[in-house]
Amino acid sequence: MKKLLFLYLLLIGLFVAYVYNYQKEDSSTREWTENELKGSMDETYVMVTFQVGIDYWKRALKGFEDAAEAMNVSVEFRGAMQYDVNEEITALEQVIARKPAGIAVSTMDPEALTPVINKAVEAGIPVVMFDADAPKSKAYSFLGTDNYNAGVEAAHKMAELLNEEGKLGVITQPHQLNQQERTQGFQDTIYSDYPDMNVVSIKDGRGDQMLSKEAAQEMMKEYANLTGIFVTEAVGGVGVGKAVLANERQDTMKIISFDTDKGTLDMVKDGLISATLAQGTWEMGYWSLQFLFHLNHGLVEQVDEKAPLPRFVDTGVTIVTKENVDSFYPK
Amino acid sequence: MKKLLFLYLLLIGLFVAYVYNYQKEDSSTREWTENELKGSMDETYVMVTFQVGIDYWKRALKGFEDAAEAMNVSVEFRGAMQYDVNEEITALEQVIARKPAGIAVSTMDPEALTPVINKAVEAGIPVVMFDADAPKSKAYSFLGTDNYNAGVEAAHKMAELLNEEGKLGVITQPHQLNQQERTQGFQDTIYSDYPDMNVVSIKDGRGDQMLSKEAAQEMMKEYANLTGIFVTEAVGGVGVGKAVLANERQDTMKIISFDTDKGTLDMVKDGLISATLAQGTWEMGYWSLQFLFHLNHGLVEQVDEKAPLPRFVDTGVTIVTKENVDSFYPK
Repeated sequence: MKKLLFLYLLLIGLFVAYVYNYQKEDSSTREWTENELKGSMDETYVMVTFQVGIDYWKRALKGFEDAAEAMNVSVEFRGAMQYDVNEEITALEQVIARKPAGIAVSTMDPEALTPVINKAVEAGIPVVMFDADAPKSKAYSFLGTDNYNAGVEAAHKMAELLNEEGKLGVITQPHQLNQQERTQGFQDTIYSDYPDMNVVSIKDGRGDQMLSKEAAQEMMKEYANLTGIFVTEAVGGVGVGKAVLANERQDTMKIISFDTDKGTLDMVKDGLISATLAQGTWEMGYWSLQFLFHLNHGLVEQVDEKAPLPRFVDTGVTIVTKENVDSFYPK
Repeated sequence: MKKLLFLYLLLIGLFVAYVYNYQKEDSSTREWTENELKGSMDETYVMVTFQVGIDYWKRALKGFEDAAEAMNVSVEFRGAMQYDVNEEITALEQVIARKPAGIAVSTMDPEALTPVINKAVEAGIPVVMFDADAPKSKAYSFLGTDNYNAGVEAAHKMAELLNEEGKLGVITQPHQLNQQERTQGFQDTIYSDYPDMNVVSIKDGRGDQMLSKEAAQEMMKEYANLTGIFVTEAVGGVGVGKAVLANERQDTMKIISFDTDKGTLDMVKDGLISATLAQGTWEMGYWSLQFLFHLNHGLVEQVDEKAPLPRFVDTGVTIVTKENVDSFYPK
């Protein structure tokens, strides 16, 4: 009989614990549904780019993934293997057909991609552009680098490196809009802020290492007193570094390059390139997903359906030097 | 004995239910703590402005509050009652002394506020600027209108209203940077995109209704064939509307104004002002709080401590016309 009583008591105790526990769980469930910034894992957001294999996208994708983790949703990475616009169009069309929760697109050809981007928006799929915009498309926002401002930052850094005096050269791709903007920001800032500095030469490096090297060599021949070169794109910096080495000018010449390719980072580490500008690719990916999530969940004020989001986010540049270069190698 | 067996079975059943339930609750608890975008109510984020009583801040504060609700944190609204920089400095200093989780500041005087903003940042308090920047301060980001682009949008709308032809005037405040940028964006776009339109007159309305009315009247006298006026700030639009009425030119003159003051909205409703540009103030408030939360919780990639956030968010403008004007009246 004692044994039975013990069992009864245990039974009652467990029942109380069960009910208490059930209520506790119920209240936490209630708060769960109130949490607007939590999605579900069957919500899939897709990042679409071109040349999907290159390192450049890694940090953007990491940002996209980090935001997905914070908001409990899924992500995918799709696009063209090659630098091939038709392949990117096909990839984007396949993504649209599966009706994802949202798409972040970086385009190698705004004209060609615009009709496909518009098709996605018209099908009710949230789309934002990142890194490279399609400004005439119906995408809701663009998250990328303000290239003019990147040139401004390069100019200030160059002035700091050269104690605000000296003759400068720029190696760029004069036919590409983003490169023109970087060059213009650099020139304007040197002109307006640093009276003892001037840009004496601008040459076309064609985004090629060898041709950028040759351009730098010509420049140094034409201007013996040149003390600084700004390279506005990712590939030329290493070429200019090699030209400076070949001319044994490494002790007097300051080079500022662009982006964080391994070759460039290695030269920054060696001190041959004084600084390079890292774009905010993690930020592009992170805030792209945030924006897409907000569109998909209707969390943005929509007084006018055309403008529910900020139209442009300048993700900025970070100046990479010997001091902080280690954290920019891909992990 | 049968009774005892039944009790044993019930006991085992309940125990299994309890354990199952406990595990379920445990797993949801685990996910809870993983939810990075949920703060606590004792985390207080403060919005600091000037002339706190004006309608202009209402939508920005609403955005700030909406984000706070989504992330389960608290907000406060503080600042100067008057258009008085010393009062704003005092208000900001009082806020800093209470060590809030973050501060979003709009400044009426960047020079004067910068040392106080820097004091907050140096004390480890996340600070972003919104609406009006202090560009030389240590604030982590600026969220506001790209004024040049607002002028571009106004030009495209004006072209649409006038079938891409006609003589235009601008009434502005030529000594204020944001007004200069709006005027420049408008002029550049008319010049480059619309060969049959041109800006023939730019006058100073001094941000005053009467003086803007007078400027518009002079303009119409000087240019009898004027068919469009762009007013670059909030107060002048109503004055220009009155000038057009006084000259009985309401059937031929198109006016585009700025911001959404009640007088302006009323004239848009009446059709006297064809369009006005609403700034993305809700977006400024919403994304300011998001940014502050991310800084406070260390959720942003920090390869370089100076640039954990996008440096600039252009919250864009929305074109308000008769069709959508009702949703812009303060609620």
